[in-house]
Amino acid sequence: MKTSTEKEKSSKTKRDVMLEAGICDMRYGVKGMYIWLPYGMEIRNRVDSIIREEMKRTSHGEVYFPLLIPENYFKKEEEHIKGFSTQVYWVTHGGDKRLKRKLLLRPTSETAMYPSFALWIRTHRDLPLKIFQIVNTYRYETKQTRPLIRIREIHFFESHTAHETFEESEKQIAEDVEIMSNIGKKLCIPYLLNRRPEWDKFAGAYYSMGADAFMPEGKTLQIGTIHNYRDNFSKAYNIKYKDDEGKEHYVHQTTYGMSERLIGAVVLLHSDSTGLILPPAIAPIKGVIIPVIFKGKEKRVMEFADEVHEDLKDFVIDKRAITPGNKYYDWEKKGVPLRIEIGPREVDEGCVVIVPRDTKEKIKIAKEDVKETVEKELNALSDRLYKKAEKLLREKIVNIEDMNKRKVSRKIARFNWCGSEECGHAIEESLGVSLLGTGSEKEKGRCISCHRDCDTIAYGAKTY
Amino acid sequence: MKTSTEKEKSSKTKRDVMLEAGICDMRYGVKGMYIWLPYGMEIRNRVDSIIREEMKRTSHGEVYFPLLIPENYFKKEEEHIKGFSTQVYWVTHGGDKRLKRKLLLRPTSETAMYPSFALWIRTHRDLPLKIFQIVNTYRYETKQTRPLIRIREIHFFESHTAHETFEESEKQIAEDVEIMSNIGKKLCIPYLLNRRPEWDKFAGAYYSMGADAFMPEGKTLQIGTIHNYRDNFSKAYNIKYKDDEGKEHYVHQTTYGMSERLIGAVVLLHSDSTGLILPPAIAPIKGVIIPVIFKGKEKRVMEFADEVHEDLKDFVIDKRAITPGNKYYDWEKKGVPLRIEIGPREVDEGCVVIVPRDTKEKIKIAKEDVKETVEKELNALSDRLYKKAEKLLREKIVNIEDMNKRKVSRKIARFNWCGSEECGHAIEESLGVSLLGTGSEKEKGRCISCHRDCDTIAYGAKTY
Repeated sequence: MKTSTEKEKSSKTKRDVMLEAGICDMRYGVKGMYIWLPYGMEIRNRVDSIIREEMKRTSHGEVYFPLLIPENYFKKEEEHIKGFSTQVYWVTHGGDKRLKRKLLLRPTSETAMYPSFALWIRTHRDLPLKIFQIVNTYRYETKQTRPLIRIREIHFFESHTAHETFEESEKQIAEDVEIMSNIGKKLCIPYLLNRRPEWDKFAGAYYSMGADAFMPEGKTLQIGTIHNYRDNFSKAYNIKYKDDEGKEHYVHQTTYGMSERLIGAVVLLHSDSTGLILPPAIAPIKGVIIPVIFKGKEKRVMEFADEVHEDLKDFVIDKRAITPGNKYYDWEKKGVPLRIEIGPREVDEGCVVIVPRDTKEKIKIAKEDVKETVEKELNALSDRLYKKAEKLLREKIVNIEDMNKRKVSRKIARFNWCGSEECGHAIEESLGVSLLGTGSEKEKGRCISCHRDCDTIAYGAKTY
Repeated sequence: MKTSTEKEKSSKTKRDVMLEAGICDMRYGVKGMYIWLPYGMEIRNRVDSIIREEMKRTSHGEVYFPLLIPENYFKKEEEHIKGFSTQVYWVTHGGDKRLKRKLLLRPTSETAMYPSFALWIRTHRDLPLKIFQIVNTYRYETKQTRPLIRIREIHFFESHTAHETFEESEKQIAEDVEIMSNIGKKLCIPYLLNRRPEWDKFAGAYYSMGADAFMPEGKTLQIGTIHNYRDNFSKAYNIKYKDDEGKEHYVHQTTYGMSERLIGAVVLLHSDSTGLILPPAIAPIKGVIIPVIFKGKEKRVMEFADEVHEDLKDFVIDKRAITPGNKYYDWEKKGVPLRIEIGPREVDEGCVVIVPRDTKEKIKIAKEDVKETVEKELNALSDRLYKKAEKLLREKIVNIEDMNKRKVSRKIARFNWCGSEECGHAIEESLGVSLLGTGSEKEKGRCISCHRDCDTIAYGAKTY
């Protein structure tokens, strides 16, 4: 186990990765709130685009609900208030005037949206209602903040749906699970999907699932959550539909949320001692062409490099008057997936050298095959990143047969759990982990706390 | 002149246009804040994309600065505070705890950004610095609010630049003027560009320019503002660069801002009694194909319509089992630029009928020419919208030779003005207008207030 000083050093390194790659600048005057730099914004916009594509594919409409929520909207669902009231920011004044009604900054948008759901939904023909928004949410975190991981201004995706029946809402959950899987693949983030224990579900939810990715620092990071609310909120916000006979029913609702933690996971999972390695799907620059100049041969090399660039319009060509080594370093820090080196020898041979950011292996290919090879190498790099992270995840899962042994450190514990809260907390205490919840697989065994027979498999780990 | 009841009716109609087209829902619990519906969001995202393209073309990097600004950041530039302090929202509590330092919601981002500019800019090699962000800003408006026009949660574009010299900053202003012109053309919004009088410039600016579009209701709407700050902010925020000799200088800064008023202008300018007419550049659906079915000929018409749809992938085909008339009405409300009607006769002749949203003139063309004609008709519609609005603008400008006559109503007054504040206010009072500022053209004459010789042309109108 790392000492606390080592941990700090490693955490500092990731901060450096982010600043040096040009993702975020952490020097802002409010704790837990950071500046997104142009390169970081391009990555973030690409992640948002991937989400929007998935939403379009699955017929969700994009909306925007106001940031400011009136106190009376917020106070309708009891569990939800309990869950959030200690961490909402309150706006109390406009100019010098005290507002008649306090307003809160959205910590999430259930309470902003659902009064409108009650207006929009009249009959079963208005269902399913499927919407999403990508906005910032605000939570006055009392825990230690950390860029991209635990922050007070969160770049947030949230989809909200309403359905006729519980069964329909469960189909939506299945669709969300599929979307999460597509996004995990594109961003090269494998994860475990766990159904959270009762005491850790979203405030107001019937049940919650979390996508837990394992980070090299030894903890799991929740990168997405999917909730079935059943009719908990529709009862509080009076969201009803009439069926064909004119009979009224409360709708069943689900939500699905993700944030810039997706980018946090990429930074934590996919960087090395030089800097970032970006999954091609979210890389603002897919590759860089570097002419390696020798005196007297500049012109031929430059012309050849320009020709290669013609075929690779989303590549950058770096003609700066600095050494190739310095150029390599600059683009490696930024995580650019591919580098193409072109020197006099390549020109003579009609070839280029392709160097993937992760392996740094030199691949020499004929100039006419460049476009095709680049496409192939980008896919191959993406596969390698995913598989490497998946291997890490799988390797770190340890089966626990008996909880009365030593703590589980920097690993994910896998064990039978009877499902009782008492045993859950006992296990957390004994293993020194948080119970992530139950996976979808079944396996006969005995609860490691009470030793009763059960077939439920649960996971536990230290979390961010 | 319209009576006040007529005005209300016309204003209500525009609200209806927005709700019926599916742009905004005004039923939200905070005054001046509205819900963007899916169709409205698609339009808004298209406007944002056009802005992002222009920003990319002119080498501005996209950033994001936090919403919450610490009080001490805000209070550094005196004029700026004076201008904004009555209309900022204050966050005073996190959960139940009073914050040690109050935070304000950004009304605009100078004070959030410029402490970072002081960190980022070291030498002349860091200049020019050109960034922008698209965010929401918050202003506690005391005037009457109105959707898309005067609101308290503003969807805001703001670019901020820093330069070595005043001359360089003036070149930036010229670039901003060109960008504004490109955007005006694409959105079919002609405007006058006026240099605002001293008493109406942006808080902290050296000078301000406003793009004023004329709306059919008889008032001008400011759809964009461009400011040269000179070194007013750099002195307050200590933003300096070293020249080649190591000598320090304050940077010169500019900003450029636009908002969803661009969409407000489109709604006010380009709608008729049926509903919206969208400029093709921002239309989520470029056209709709409507099979006009007669008993017994369904199959042939549908097949033919599907074939046409093959060629027009960004068109929608409407196969609902309702009358063609109802379909026409639905899509007209939404402002879809083109309609294609296909009935049995068209199938027999191998033709389609194209109906532009504005003229409703039926254009019959051979099926094989559909793609080309659609492209041409979209451009033609865009041209007509722009020219119609430009004609309105030009017609409404009245030259005023003498201010001691009747008020200027539902028009734009054009007159010589000596430039003095005293005369400016006297003219405003006498004509019953706001002084928009001075245009770029010169024309010899006499100030209509003091009768001194001058060649400055100014404009005045009622404004939103």
